[in-house]
Amino acid sequence: MEKFYKDRNVLITGGLGFLGSNLALRLDRLGARVTLVDAFLPGHGANWRNIEEIRGSVQVNLCDIRDEHAMARMVADKQTIFHIAGQTSHTDSMTDPFLDIDINCRGNMVFLETVRKHNPEARVVYASTRAIYGAPVTVPVTEAVRPNATDIYGVNKYAGEAYHMIYHRAHGIPITVLRCSNGYGPRAQIEHPKFGILNWFVGLILRNQKIKIFGDGAQLRDYTFADDFIEAFLLAGMKQDALGQVFNIGATTQIRFLDMVKTLIEIAGQGEYELVPWPPEYKKIEVGDFAYDISKAQTVLGWSPSTAFEDGLRKTFDFYRANLEHYLPAE
Amino acid sequence: MEKFYKDRNVLITGGLGFLGSNLALRLDRLGARVTLVDAFLPGHGANWRNIEEIRGSVQVNLCDIRDEHAMARMVADKQTIFHIAGQTSHTDSMTDPFLDIDINCRGNMVFLETVRKHNPEARVVYASTRAIYGAPVTVPVTEAVRPNATDIYGVNKYAGEAYHMIYHRAHGIPITVLRCSNGYGPRAQIEHPKFGILNWFVGLILRNQKIKIFGDGAQLRDYTFADDFIEAFLLAGMKQDALGQVFNIGATTQIRFLDMVKTLIEIAGQGEYELVPWPPEYKKIEVGDFAYDISKAQTVLGWSPSTAFEDGLRKTFDFYRANLEHYLPAE
Repeated sequence: MEKFYKDRNVLITGGLGFLGSNLALRLDRLGARVTLVDAFLPGHGANWRNIEEIRGSVQVNLCDIRDEHAMARMVADKQTIFHIAGQTSHTDSMTDPFLDIDINCRGNMVFLETVRKHNPEARVVYASTRAIYGAPVTVPVTEAVRPNATDIYGVNKYAGEAYHMIYHRAHGIPITVLRCSNGYGPRAQIEHPKFGILNWFVGLILRNQKIKIFGDGAQLRDYTFADDFIEAFLLAGMKQDALGQVFNIGATTQIRFLDMVKTLIEIAGQGEYELVPWPPEYKKIEVGDFAYDISKAQTVLGWSPSTAFEDGLRKTFDFYRANLEHYLPAE
Repeated sequence: MEKFYKDRNVLITGGLGFLGSNLALRLDRLGARVTLVDAFLPGHGANWRNIEEIRGSVQVNLCDIRDEHAMARMVADKQTIFHIAGQTSHTDSMTDPFLDIDINCRGNMVFLETVRKHNPEARVVYASTRAIYGAPVTVPVTEAVRPNATDIYGVNKYAGEAYHMIYHRAHGIPITVLRCSNGYGPRAQIEHPKFGILNWFVGLILRNQKIKIFGDGAQLRDYTFADDFIEAFLLAGMKQDALGQVFNIGATTQIRFLDMVKTLIEIAGQGEYELVPWPPEYKKIEVGDFAYDISKAQTVLGWSPSTAFEDGLRKTFDFYRANLEHYLPAE
């Protein structure tokens, strides 16, 4: 992996966000030449603190993936592109579906057209999401399970990955799609609960605020640590067998939502929770139990999540305790 | 059916196109109060001749479904809305993906938001397409088969129907989705081969031009006559069991592409064809064999196609022979 990425010209869209910045740190350590693109949209997770350690050794370019002229320059000379930028809030996609369409449909097409015109040889890894399965029609969920999104975000992320697959088949662009499950870890935004609920709870605990659990918290979920996702992105960018393929990327160990909260409080050594009724805007898009089948990623990418939940939580609390002021919600 | 639609306030988007106009004629005969919306986009199939017989008894409003203010007035007082307008060319979606996104993603969302705000009680029937299955992952294709579109049109039509299903579940709008297969019959455009290939061939035969078949013409296809589609739309707008449901609507009898052409020539009593190599832009999005499972529509809607292929072709040739000048390509 070091051999592959050393001196490699790499672009990361959404590079100042949660996944993008963690990936940037790792690529920088591997010796890659890293360029980060980020639109810094309010509420979308970009944070200068995320890349403080590598500020001097990476290129940062603030622009929107919908900006075709800036993006043409960004993609032109890159060997590998990790395309992570997107609208990521389930609830926002229901209250402002047009923004979600503009970023996750039109914006992805601007990106792909730019790659097709200016650098069709670039290896592209696209960050999709388990939200495309929505309330899954069968569990555990393999890549062959049909999409059943419960919100506009899930539909448009599916459209985005389908565009990528079509641009692979019709235009020969070497593309891999990763359907990422719930993530947690350092460098996620903790300003609002619109995405990254576990990190939101970490923030509440550190700010001595009570966690509200909707319903009884009995739904099964899986949580994947940032470093495990990053490993999957790096492998997906290397393996020839991954071309034109879609992979489920997520933890296989299920935990009930309520037990996740109890574990957080235990690891933190502080915190409180209460059960409250489902707010209607969340209930409408709640997906129920979810369990991932990741055997394709295990076989083809040689990837499995390796971080124990408690270890990941400890690293997460360590990070936010040391950096809390940089991640607090604006007053 | 007459009882249900008599004096009913009905809106048809794409009302001057192939399906929309045939539906309008039938609804007019059933005694419905029909309003037609059409954007008259160049190349999209709208033709005044399509509604000549009912010009005096239907309302026509030229506007785009992306025009939220005009559409607000259009949907406000309607009991039933047949939402058929859309970008419909596979190849155009590959050469101009942004127009397809703007109509089939953003335009569908403008439509749905307009219905949600101004008339959430309206019964909506959305015309989707078998193109969402693309190169189907299993044959015959039931509604449970996962989408696998080979072009941007197929992806965005899937997004459009998924938006509709979400607006049904989250906002309670009474919606039914019909995934329509290849259609043919009177009132389709025959100006270009970008959609409605059978009608295009009918036009070529009547203009004494040779039909070009790409490849060997061995791929299996099904062709559904306009009147059969119209019956499905009318049933879908009536049945309570159809709410929140998706249905495959198409013929079950398969015919090889080459045999379809031979039958056309036989029924017409004129015409010639030749085999030519696949042009690359078509080959890239060709889907191979296709066979529809329509048992859900048979069970729930009580719908089956009833027009024999030869009968449908005779009616089609009769129509275009009587009206050819109104459907010829612009010089």
